[in-house]
Amino acid sequence: MDQNGIQGRRGPTAGELAVWREYVETSEVVRQMMAAGLQATSGISPGDYGVLLALSEAEEGRLRSSVLAEAIGWERSRLSHHLGRMESRGLIHRTKSGNDSRGAVVELADEGARLFRASSAPHLRLIRQLFVDALTPDDLADLGRITGKLRNHLSGPDGETRSQ
Amino acid sequence: MDQNGIQGRRGPTAGELAVWREYVETSEVVRQMMAAGLQATSGISPGDYGVLLALSEAEEGRLRSSVLAEAIGWERSRLSHHLGRMESRGLIHRTKSGNDSRGAVVELADEGARLFRASSAPHLRLIRQLFVDALTPDDLADLGRITGKLRNHLSGPDGETRSQ
Repeated sequence: MDQNGIQGRRGPTAGELAVWREYVETSEVVRQMMAAGLQATSGISPGDYGVLLALSEAEEGRLRSSVLAEAIGWERSRLSHHLGRMESRGLIHRTKSGNDSRGAVVELADEGARLFRASSAPHLRLIRQLFVDALTPDDLADLGRITGKLRNHLSGPDGETRSQ
Repeated sequence: MDQNGIQGRRGPTAGELAVWREYVETSEVVRQMMAAGLQATSGISPGDYGVLLALSEAEEGRLRSSVLAEAIGWERSRLSHHLGRMESRGLIHRTKSGNDSRGAVVELADEGARLFRASSAPHLRLIRQLFVDALTPDDLADLGRITGKLRNHLSGPDGETRSQ
């Protein structure tokens, strides 16, 4: 019998569920406060920041849209709409590439590079104030270890069947 | 000098930033996989589930929309739009309450109660499979403790100024 046999049919215990709820709710609060901070200090969304960060770290500031979608964890259709809005604000350029199924080449524009540099310091400071300052070095090490286990579990070879 | 004096101007270290990124990215993967699971098993969104859960736990299945917004962590305007769609699907009823600034009374409809009962078991099973199964009891205890510290930090008396 596999590990999901009889036990697989039960839900979490009350204690497990309490940790789950706290985890989900807290990560949502963190997400919302970071989004509000980015908006207030730099006038951009977390999605904008993620795109600018990924392009800034890429060779020559360029990525295929398929690679960019993977890097920021978005579906390609959602990213495509988002990139259209960023392009109209002069933050990126897109170069269509015929029938290449990997999508357009997305390139950081000068205005995007400027905005990323300007937004980066307040964003990093906020990460320290909201997140790092809350925790001891031991807490951070524990959280890194636990989060890594969770991530591996979710992306494991049978990760797909786990979501059924 | 307060604790955010000279140190307050620095960003996180590379190690701290790595834990931060892993935390944010993993919680986003968890969120997306749970949303996909809810959709696949029950045809509802996490927002729908959150509303149905809060109403199911409320006395007589009723809450003020202001209390409901607080319970699920949404802004009232976003919740109001969402409730409009749930009402048109017959999942909830809303009763306007004149000038009461606490908003309409939201009530679980029979169809909403039925849908919540049907979606609850697969949802709980998914929480166990995606989250609880990834971690040992010690991991869960550590994660609960760390998440609680983070949550307290974010909702502390000067939580507002921390987001500046």
